[in-house]
Amino acid sequence: MAVVNVGICGLGTVGGGAVTVLRRNAAVIAARAGADIVIRQIGARRDKPGIDTQGIDVVRDVFAVARNPDIDIVVELIGGTTTAKELVLEAIKHGKHVVTANKALIAEYGNEIFAAAAKQGVSVCFEAAVAGGIPIIKAIREGLAANRIQWLAGIINGTGNFILSEMRSKGRAFDDVLAEAQKLGYAEADPTFDVEGIDAAHKLVILASIAFGIPLRFDAVFTEGISRLQIEDIRHADELGYRVKHLGVARRTDAGVELRVHPTLIPAKRLIANVNGVKNAVLVESDAVGPTLYYGAGAGAEPTASAVIADIVDLARTMGMDVRYRVPPLAFQSGAIENVAVIPMEDVVCGHYLRMSVLDKPGVLSQVTQVLSSHGISVEALIQKEPEESAETATIILLTSRAAEKTLVAVVKSIEAMDSIEGQVVRLRVENLDG
Amino acid sequence: MAVVNVGICGLGTVGGGAVTVLRRNAAVIAARAGADIVIRQIGARRDKPGIDTQGIDVVRDVFAVARNPDIDIVVELIGGTTTAKELVLEAIKHGKHVVTANKALIAEYGNEIFAAAAKQGVSVCFEAAVAGGIPIIKAIREGLAANRIQWLAGIINGTGNFILSEMRSKGRAFDDVLAEAQKLGYAEADPTFDVEGIDAAHKLVILASIAFGIPLRFDAVFTEGISRLQIEDIRHADELGYRVKHLGVARRTDAGVELRVHPTLIPAKRLIANVNGVKNAVLVESDAVGPTLYYGAGAGAEPTASAVIADIVDLARTMGMDVRYRVPPLAFQSGAIENVAVIPMEDVVCGHYLRMSVLDKPGVLSQVTQVLSSHGISVEALIQKEPEESAETATIILLTSRAAEKTLVAVVKSIEAMDSIEGQVVRLRVENLDG
Repeated sequence: MAVVNVGICGLGTVGGGAVTVLRRNAAVIAARAGADIVIRQIGARRDKPGIDTQGIDVVRDVFAVARNPDIDIVVELIGGTTTAKELVLEAIKHGKHVVTANKALIAEYGNEIFAAAAKQGVSVCFEAAVAGGIPIIKAIREGLAANRIQWLAGIINGTGNFILSEMRSKGRAFDDVLAEAQKLGYAEADPTFDVEGIDAAHKLVILASIAFGIPLRFDAVFTEGISRLQIEDIRHADELGYRVKHLGVARRTDAGVELRVHPTLIPAKRLIANVNGVKNAVLVESDAVGPTLYYGAGAGAEPTASAVIADIVDLARTMGMDVRYRVPPLAFQSGAIENVAVIPMEDVVCGHYLRMSVLDKPGVLSQVTQVLSSHGISVEALIQKEPEESAETATIILLTSRAAEKTLVAVVKSIEAMDSIEGQVVRLRVENLDG
Repeated sequence: MAVVNVGICGLGTVGGGAVTVLRRNAAVIAARAGADIVIRQIGARRDKPGIDTQGIDVVRDVFAVARNPDIDIVVELIGGTTTAKELVLEAIKHGKHVVTANKALIAEYGNEIFAAAAKQGVSVCFEAAVAGGIPIIKAIREGLAANRIQWLAGIINGTGNFILSEMRSKGRAFDDVLAEAQKLGYAEADPTFDVEGIDAAHKLVILASIAFGIPLRFDAVFTEGISRLQIEDIRHADELGYRVKHLGVARRTDAGVELRVHPTLIPAKRLIANVNGVKNAVLVESDAVGPTLYYGAGAGAEPTASAVIADIVDLARTMGMDVRYRVPPLAFQSGAIENVAVIPMEDVVCGHYLRMSVLDKPGVLSQVTQVLSSHGISVEALIQKEPEESAETATIILLTSRAAEKTLVAVVKSIEAMDSIEGQVVRLRVENLDG
């Protein structure tokens, strides 16, 4: 049987998982690939307890792996965008195919990396960079190849989804659940990447590029996190038949492409609204097949390794074959990649959820709805909560018809300026995800 | 740009969809494939109103397409297993790659067809044969290539799922909903294939082969339909926190492989339990990635065409390349396909739902539970319904612990023989689908 020599750089969570799964499932992987996948070398600053590297050459310099003439595929699992970028470019320069799980690297430097790879006639694969073990890159690039993809919406950060699921099911505050997530190892000590949506933005940019055939535009994503989300808004959403999810949304319109990550109300009856805990899911709307959804583990040692190894197997099948026969990195042939405008957030149209505290006197509701209707916005649903015993303010929660972000910003400003309104208006975006 | 010449045989629902989507999305498909996909010829007994075949050579003899030297890929969309089989073998004989949406053909004659194709060095692709537009074949064969797949469970017949969804949400009887499904065009005039699980069995056999690396064993599937399912059992399942779905289940155990299609209670909180209407979904449990789920349209002109065209694009990329570089039809290299024993249904272990009518006198429940415990079975949940005013019998509904089919058959026999039991015991299988 043919042998494919792999060099793994980085022996953290994912690197350890890749070594474990490649060894444990060697027979079944070879039976599928038609080749033995051999870990020829590992480059890692230190060994990892519990990971069996017996019989494998372990070196401390990852660049030695990138230059090793015996290696066919360099697997970049060191993370970050500095050394990782140098390493990937070095591997490409030495004629290696590259597999990476590094979403930041691909989202921020993918355009440059793919160009370098094309010049050298090698492939750079990144299934593991988005939604962990879910084969979503393959599904969009190949499985939906017949379709004009219209939009996609993803729960693509497990930490954030765990926090929102717990807030809803246990009625606990954000900070409280975040602390638990950190204890469980779902969230980093510095949770910014996860809870502020930066990690999701990296993944969304990659999904949008392969769905629409556009360059990677990480600079252009609108990102809003979940850290200011209040439990009462999750409860009100529930009452209205919605769930709050931290969604990445990419949509192709005549005006360009929307790229945005923000907390979003979605109808509870949609399948994706019922994806809870650390799991990920991506919903893709396409013209021929309609909606399809892909669900699974978005992170973790072995789920991510599953995606890394799927890329290795794809490469192993066609080792040495001309790169033009391979699936292009961004799904479209490089000459067909179109630099479509990214729509500024203020022009993005969607539904909105508004919550406000109002003084309990006659006419307030009519004043509020008048502001909305003067902007051409109608009220789709409304809850008015009587003041609690000791309080003087009632709460109004409403869902608006679809309108541009900038219109809603103006509406909120007008409402907040009213005498009968106390404090600020809480605003969240609403997506019906119905095709 | 390279040109790939396609011949489409059959101009029914799917054939019409394939022509429409290939024409409408020609530019975006070419941009992905790096080749123009040209419909060179259509073989169909008659034209299809509303399908634009202008400029395409339409012939009445599908075999002319199979033998046409200008055609690279023959797309078999005529259905059935007689002419379709001859056609596919003829196309293979003439060195054509084949794409088919024909689940019966692959499930029943796939082993023979793949052998013929291997001999000729051509590929036979069948993404559209299972779960319509969901790229489930690709996900399992390629996306999960790193994994030992443990089991899979699918809602793989849209008609059946529509009927069960309507029965539950509207409280309507099976016959009533079936009639509506026929009116809506979701069910055939002869609904046997759909409601008796034969269509699902065809698809399950294909999924099991690519998941486990076993030959196609349509002869060995256990199949039970939904036509005798009663609305009250759907209601009782609801009360117990379950949904009734017509599932195809394939599981690899040390003893062999389970292959079965039957109505199944699954916990309402599982994502797949919330797949309603004509939609399909497949849940796959694997050792590295854990559970992944794939959801979308399981039938229809354009969804099925989406899968057909995805196969065409895969072939177009690598046209003329040696077949050994391609993904093997059953995911595993032919030499690695193992003829594992199919476990007889009587030895299959799962949970069970039992409903019985009991005379309303003391001690009956204890007699029933004694029968169960004497077979080593415990009661996991129980509802006892008081007799209605005019009736003399109460209803007992219970969920058992996991036990072999044959044990339950014996238990039911013993219970039915009891004096205090009226009529037959209704039994349904239960799967928790929890890994």
